[in-house]
Amino acid sequence: MWRNAWMDLALQAAKAAGDEGDVPVGAVLVSPTGQSLAVAGNRVERDHDPTAHAEILAIRQAALKLRTSRLVGCDLYVTLEPCAMCAQAIAFARIRRLYYGASDPKGGGVMYGARLFSQPTCHHRPEIYDGFQEQACTQLLRNFFTNLRET
Amino acid sequence: MWRNAWMDLALQAAKAAGDEGDVPVGAVLVSPTGQSLAVAGNRVERDHDPTAHAEILAIRQAALKLRTSRLVGCDLYVTLEPCAMCAQAIAFARIRRLYYGASDPKGGGVMYGARLFSQPTCHHRPEIYDGFQEQACTQLLRNFFTNLRET
Repeated sequence: MWRNAWMDLALQAAKAAGDEGDVPVGAVLVSPTGQSLAVAGNRVERDHDPTAHAEILAIRQAALKLRTSRLVGCDLYVTLEPCAMCAQAIAFARIRRLYYGASDPKGGGVMYGARLFSQPTCHHRPEIYDGFQEQACTQLLRNFFTNLRET
Repeated sequence: MWRNAWMDLALQAAKAAGDEGDVPVGAVLVSPTGQSLAVAGNRVERDHDPTAHAEILAIRQAALKLRTSRLVGCDLYVTLEPCAMCAQAIAFARIRRLYYGASDPKGGGVMYGARLFSQPTCHHRPEIYDGFQEQACTQLLRNFFTNLRET
């Protein structure tokens, strides 16, 4: 599959999360040979779990599937810039490439705030492709919060 | 229970994790009324889960038990300075007080590296009590890594 198709899948997972009342963020983990290892949407509200961001769930699922805590050579597609929690998890998991859509000046941990991958305490930095399908990813979040304010 | 007794419990969980081959870190989550909500040791290796730090597991258990993603008024005792992943999770969970033992200049995210709670993208900062039972916490980690090098 092409990279755009993986982000389309992440967007579908994000939309499904939003339909269930969680903030619409989705993530897809892809193996070194181009297979889907995990698809996840944010489940913080549904699961009563403050750590249940889409990236964390995708990493956990993929690591369990491969029976290793290090996802060497795997790529992560996520609709929103990861926060510091998820960025540190991405570093621990040794993700090869990180593709993300919308920027998050208020809560992001890659280009904003902690700038996790630039810290001396961060021992692995993925290749980063930001602004990937940015418009679709941003629009989905914007619609969600607009609807929330109107209801 | 006194604060020292909570850290003793975290140390026991840390030791049990080390006995099973995981890095010996333990955490205890205490409710606003002084009840134990969760006790967890690091399970990264056993669970093949790069996110299975003691703090993350304790927060997830407690949040599930209380059926809320925000552990307002709860306190966390952990034997090692939290990394940026765990510090961000502590902020998301709205933990009231964070007690930790050993400092972690190489991987910590509270006083080192990301200094998570000082970031403008961090929207909740717990009261922090560092160096709590520091000697016992540090010694446990030191013994673990010494034994690892000798085997």
